[in-house]
Amino acid sequence: MALINDNFLKLPENSYFPDITKKANAYKVVHPLAKIINLGNSDVSLPLSSEVISAMLKATEEMSQAVSFKGYGPEQGYRFLIDKIIKFDYESRKVYLEPDEVFISNGSKSDIANFGEILSKDNRIAVMDLAFPVYVDSNVIGCRAGEPGSDGRWNNIVYIPCTSETNFVPELPSQKVDIVYLCFPNNPTGTALNKSQLKVWVDYAIKNNVLIFFDAAYEAFITDPNVPHSIYEIKGAKKVAVEFKSFSKSAGFTGARCGYTVVPKELIAFSKMDGTPVMLNGLWKRRQLTKFNGTPYIIQKAVEAIYSPKGREEVNELVEYYKTNARYLREALESVGLKVFGGVNSPFVWFKAPEGLSSWKMFDRLLYEVNVTGTPGVKFGPGGDGYIRLSALNDRNEILEVVERFSKWKP
Amino acid sequence: MALINDNFLKLPENSYFPDITKKANAYKVVHPLAKIINLGNSDVSLPLSSEVISAMLKATEEMSQAVSFKGYGPEQGYRFLIDKIIKFDYESRKVYLEPDEVFISNGSKSDIANFGEILSKDNRIAVMDLAFPVYVDSNVIGCRAGEPGSDGRWNNIVYIPCTSETNFVPELPSQKVDIVYLCFPNNPTGTALNKSQLKVWVDYAIKNNVLIFFDAAYEAFITDPNVPHSIYEIKGAKKVAVEFKSFSKSAGFTGARCGYTVVPKELIAFSKMDGTPVMLNGLWKRRQLTKFNGTPYIIQKAVEAIYSPKGREEVNELVEYYKTNARYLREALESVGLKVFGGVNSPFVWFKAPEGLSSWKMFDRLLYEVNVTGTPGVKFGPGGDGYIRLSALNDRNEILEVVERFSKWKP
Repeated sequence: MALINDNFLKLPENSYFPDITKKANAYKVVHPLAKIINLGNSDVSLPLSSEVISAMLKATEEMSQAVSFKGYGPEQGYRFLIDKIIKFDYESRKVYLEPDEVFISNGSKSDIANFGEILSKDNRIAVMDLAFPVYVDSNVIGCRAGEPGSDGRWNNIVYIPCTSETNFVPELPSQKVDIVYLCFPNNPTGTALNKSQLKVWVDYAIKNNVLIFFDAAYEAFITDPNVPHSIYEIKGAKKVAVEFKSFSKSAGFTGARCGYTVVPKELIAFSKMDGTPVMLNGLWKRRQLTKFNGTPYIIQKAVEAIYSPKGREEVNELVEYYKTNARYLREALESVGLKVFGGVNSPFVWFKAPEGLSSWKMFDRLLYEVNVTGTPGVKFGPGGDGYIRLSALNDRNEILEVVERFSKWKP
Repeated sequence: MALINDNFLKLPENSYFPDITKKANAYKVVHPLAKIINLGNSDVSLPLSSEVISAMLKATEEMSQAVSFKGYGPEQGYRFLIDKIIKFDYESRKVYLEPDEVFISNGSKSDIANFGEILSKDNRIAVMDLAFPVYVDSNVIGCRAGEPGSDGRWNNIVYIPCTSETNFVPELPSQKVDIVYLCFPNNPTGTALNKSQLKVWVDYAIKNNVLIFFDAAYEAFITDPNVPHSIYEIKGAKKVAVEFKSFSKSAGFTGARCGYTVVPKELIAFSKMDGTPVMLNGLWKRRQLTKFNGTPYIIQKAVEAIYSPKGREEVNELVEYYKTNARYLREALESVGLKVFGGVNSPFVWFKAPEGLSSWKMFDRLLYEVNVTGTPGVKFGPGGDGYIRLSALNDRNEILEVVERFSKWKP
C-alpha cells in the first residue's frame, strides 16, 4: 500500500493568483465595461529581443541537419554559455568562478526549490518574513517546516523580521539557524541591500556556519552602484552562499525558461553521521545528473546571445523600459500620498495601505476605485499584511493608463 | 551548521558513460587509426523532422512580437499539446483521459526521479533486476534504498528477477512491496510485455494495493500488435499506475527536452497518519506548481507538430529508420552465433556474451576486435552481467559498418 508524503496535506492550496483572478472576474460581471489592468502577476510583456530571436532561429536550423544536430547535452549546461556567464556576470565584477561551479537550468524557481534535496531535513531554516512562497512550500515538502500555526507561520521555521522602519532590511536571526534564504533585490518589497548591509550577513554566516541561499533573480534591475550584483562581491561569500540567477525578467525568458545556479567549490556542509565536511558542488552535480537532463540547446544558444555586444544593449533596453515603468508607478503612488518602497533597483513597487487597511481591503479598493489589480502583501507572509505589490513588468501604455488613473485617485 | 543529505554519500559516482569513454580513449592512444563506433550511449542521431522545425521557427517568430509573445505558461502544459496527446496517444487506443491528468515536462527522467517526492520514504520499492539506474539512485536520495551491499544491491529494495530463460519477463515479487518500477519496452533488454503479461502485473497491483511506475519511454518502437502502447490499455490500470512518456527517442527530442506524465484521478495512495486515501493527481500538481515552471512554449509547439498528419508520418519514418537499424544489428549478431534479445519492439539490442564472459570482458572484446563500444549489461544491475546492450539509434552508415565488421567476427 503506497503511502504519500503527508507534508503535502499541510500545504495551503496554491492560491497565488487564483483568488486575485476570481475577484477581478467577479467585478467584471457587475462592471462589464471596466478595463481592469493587472499589475498583480510578475510576468513580462515585452517580446524576446532580436539578437535572442536570431540565435534561436539559427539554433533551430542547426537542429534540422544531421551534421549540426544536438542530442543530449551536458546536464550542467554547455560551456559556450557557462563561459559567457562567468565572463560577463562575474569577472566584470572581479568575481572569479570555475566552469564547473555554474549550473544552467530551466529556471531559478526549480533550482531554489530542489536545492534542499541535497541537504538534511534536520536543518533549521530561516526566511525573511516577506518571501517568495516557494521557499517555505519546498521546505514543507522537504519536511523542514514543522506544523503551520494559526498566524500562517510554521513552527520549525525561523522568520526574520523585515519592517518598513528599516526599509525592509532583515535583522540577523536571534535563534540558531543552519540555512537562510535571502532575496535581493527583494521580491516583493523591491528593496535592496548595499554592500555593507550584505556584508553583515556574509560575516554572520561565516561566523555561525550558516548556509545562505541567495536569490538574485532581479539583479539586472540594480541601479544603485552601492548595491552588489552578486553575493560573491562580498569577501568570503563563496564559503557560505549558493547564488540563484534567472533570465526570466532580465531577458524576458518567463516562457523560454532558463536560469543558473552557482555552487562554489569552497562551499561545504557536513555529514550528519560523522561531521565530515562535504563539498555541496559535488552533491548538486550528482543531483542534477540523476534528476535532470539539461536545458534545451536552442534555449542555451538564445541566452548566449544576450552576452553579445548588441545582445547586452538590447537587454539593457528591456530592463530600462521596466525600470522607467517602475519609476512612473512609484512617483504616481507617492504623489497621492502613499508610502512607497522599491521600484528603484527592482521591477516591483511596494506600498503601504493608508489608515491601517489590510492587504485584501486595499486590494479591493484598488480594484473598485481604479480598476487595477495588485498582489496583496499578505501572500508573501503575515508581515506583508497592509501592503500591496505592483509589478512594473507590463506594457508601457498600461502603466501610463494606471498612472493617469492614480493621478485622479484619493486613496 | 548545515547538514547534508547523507544518502548522497552512499551513491556510486555517476559512471554510466565516463568509464566507457575512458576505455575507448585508451584504446585510441595505442591504435590512433582505429575508427571506433560508439553504440554504447542512447542518444539519437537523426535531426528534428521538418514539421517540428517549421513549428519551432514559427513559435520563435511568435516570441519576437508583443502580440504573440508567450510568458509564463501553465505549469502543467498548454492545452493545445495536452489535447493532441490525449487524442492521438490515448483515444486512438480507447483510453480516455481528462486534460488535467496529463502533465507536460522537460523529459521523463526528471519526472520519474521526482515523482517519489510526493510519496512517503517508508514505501518499499521494487525494481526489475535490470533497470535504468535513475530508479534506484533517486530512491537512494529519497531515503528508501537502505544500504548498499557488496553485490551492488540495496538492502531495502526488492529486486525482481528477470532472466533470459523467460525472455526477461519479470516475476511477481514474493515479498510485500508498495511501489514497482516497470519499463516496457525495456531498457536495457529491448524486450516487451504482451497484453496478457502486463495484465498479470496490473491485476497483482490491484489485488495487493501496489503502485506501478510505468516507464513507457520506448513505446513508439512497438511493432508487435499484442504489445500494449499504454498500461491503461489494461483494465483497471488507472487505479494503480502512473505512466511516463518521452519524446526523446520517438521524435528525436534528446536535446530539445520534452516528455509527459499521466496521473489518473482514480489513482490513490494513503496518508501515513490516518490512512486517508489521497489522489496522487492533486499531489503531483501541487509539486509541479511549487518546483516547476513549465516547459518552454516553443518546445511544446514543436511537439504539437508531431501530431499533424505530416508530423506523424515523419515520426514514423524516424522510428522505422532506427527499427531497421535494430533489425540489422540483431541479425548480424545472430548470424555469428550470439544469443540476442530485443531489437524488435525497441531500439536496443541485448546480447549474451559467449563462454560465460563478464560484461566488461565482453566490452573489451567488442572494442579490441571490432572497434565497437557497447554498454556493459552490469551497468543496469548485477543481473545484467554477461550481457551487452547495443543502441540502434545511430546513423545508418555506422550501423552498416558495424554489421560488416560483425560478419567477419568470431565472437
